Amino acid sequence: MGRQTLDEPELIARFFAPLAGPGGLGLRDDAALVAPPPGTELVVTADALVAGVHFFAEDPPEKIAAKALAVNLSDLAAKAAAPLGFLLTLALPPGWTPDWLEAFAQGLRHPACPLLGGDTVATPGPLTLSITALGAVPAGRMVRRAGAREGDRLYVSGTIGDAVLGLALRRAELGLASAPEWAKALAPTQGAELVGRYLSPQPRLALKPALRACASAGMDVSDGLVGDLRALMRASGTSARVDLGLAPLSDAAAAALRADPGLFEALFSGGDDYEILCAVNPDRAARFETLADAAGVAVTAIGTVEPAYAGDLFLGRDGVPLAFRRDRFSHF
Amino acid sequence: MGRQTLDEPELIARFFAPLAGPGGLGLRDDAALVAPPPGTELVVTADALVAGVHFFAEDPPEKIAAKALAVNLSDLAAKAAAPLGFLLTLALPPGWTPDWLEAFAQGLRHPACPLLGGDTVATPGPLTLSITALGAVPAGRMVRRAGAREGDRLYVSGTIGDAVLGLALRRAELGLASAPEWAKALAPTQGAELVGRYLSPQPRLALKPALRACASAGMDVSDGLVGDLRALMRASGTSARVDLGLAPLSDAAAAALRADPGLFEALFSGGDDYEILCAVNPDRAARFETLADAAGVAVTAIGTVEPAYAGDLFLGRDGVPLAFRRDRFSHF
Repeated sequence: MGRQTLDEPELIARFFAPLAGPGGLGLRDDAALVAPPPGTELVVTADALVAGVHFFAEDPPEKIAAKALAVNLSDLAAKAAAPLGFLLTLALPPGWTPDWLEAFAQGLRHPACPLLGGDTVATPGPLTLSITALGAVPAGRMVRRAGAREGDRLYVSGTIGDAVLGLALRRAELGLASAPEWAKALAPTQGAELVGRYLSPQPRLALKPALRACASAGMDVSDGLVGDLRALMRASGTSARVDLGLAPLSDAAAAALRADPGLFEALFSGGDDYEILCAVNPDRAARFETLADAAGVAVTAIGTVEPAYAGDLFLGRDGVPLAFRRDRFSHF
Repeated sequence: MGRQTLDEPELIARFFAPLAGPGGLGLRDDAALVAPPPGTELVVTADALVAGVHFFAEDPPEKIAAKALAVNLSDLAAKAAAPLGFLLTLALPPGWTPDWLEAFAQGLRHPACPLLGGDTVATPGPLTLSITALGAVPAGRMVRRAGAREGDRLYVSGTIGDAVLGLALRRAELGLASAPEWAKALAPTQGAELVGRYLSPQPRLALKPALRACASAGMDVSDGLVGDLRALMRASGTSARVDLGLAPLSDAAAAALRADPGLFEALFSGGDDYEILCAVNPDRAARFETLADAAGVAVTAIGTVEPAYAGDLFLGRDGVPLAFRRDRFSHF
């Protein structure tokens, strides 16, 4: 109901139209037009991010934008879908500048996923953005959550726990908390690596061929490995036996954990990993590892799928069962 | 970064999963799965709405939700697309109640457009929601903005200007403004009709067969007839000659206009009409009118498309050219 001088069509033409893919029709129509490849089904996912909740308003605008896109691409990656494009709705608070918006828009450039459309509105509240990403899979081949079978091996990509450590360091950088003690144990570049894992998640799109060929179930790890693994098992009607001592840690996270063994729980219940968790039939495990290796993505077996859902068992590095007080990181 | 006690999966299971269509996979996966009908292309549109900007926080939650969906369906209707489903991202401010959310969710029920997925997050700011709606058109048959040709007739559906009057009445209802003088000229039910047009837009999905068969270009009227008509002409590289004296008014709007002739400009530059504006080749005009009539949607010819874009001509009821000071209602 407010009328401001800013002209939305000009804003779109200046900052966002240059990012538009062919289906975006130059962002000059009311809707995008998407022709999914023949024989495919569409995989569609949406995530919202709010300044002060999911990111810091002080974060670099290109990183805010790229992360918002990356968390959606991570969902597509976990479903073994090839990105087709995305729509963005952006609620801008007062006081934004053209420089800020220019940098934000640059952060949305992605070689595999063009902008298709969206909406830009004013808000008296915090910056809020919502991205809907569309992908394609061969019909019937989406990797679902509900598909894990007894005996499957459980794999996770990359390394786990970096982002929750990076968030702690980022809070200290911004003066919102004191630097954690364990930060003193990090080599000079390791702190920056951890902050980078928090600010700039890398969706594992390269794992698509391995997932399509071999995964019986999968999801991305966005809310903490323990909680997400429980969600995967619940959806599949199975349970897991996981040895967290096998879970892949970066050198930086391992150094932090040596300095503060009490971090163990946080590494596996913190969020923002954006790695892939999947279940693979043992007959396909060798092929899965070969395809992942060919894709340049490290994958690590951390456990097995057990029969009917009866509570998951998480073992620590000493083989002793663990109890997690908080199984799911939640922004809510 | 905040951790609250509310559990997002429970919230989704309780309020939103009952609305999910088959492609929503019970809202228990990371993404929706959509199989567009063979031979179709996808039409995708997204709109964001912010409390205090696009609606009043005091509005009934089911009406907030239904309007957010309706404004997206209106875009699909204008493109002659059949709805397939929608995704919702919802940023909830502190203090929401289960009753509020229950009513909100009920407002999202639509017989032609099931919920497919989305995201629910917390915000310290105003309620913010973003909907992405997906529709299907036969390949190559989306009605675009860029398609109007010299000689086409310009049609508009329903009646224009009701919602901007309804907004003025709604502001008075909420004590945000005094009641307009012209309100005294309305019959008892007419005020409620106008408020209803503002709160509960009705997307013209029934016009789809008429648009597919006959429209050379189209869009929905969401930001005011004058500005939207200019946008349609700009996209088509044409200009318009429009007699606003022909523009369809409801009895209520006509009564208000008789009481206050100064409303004329506001009726055609106010927003939230959610009617369809389209261009139709004169050879197809009779068929368009027949199909619209069969669909139960009134359509009115208000002007013609002129050659190359050189500024649009709007004539008032007296045939005198009009100048619009503000050609586009903008929430921004």
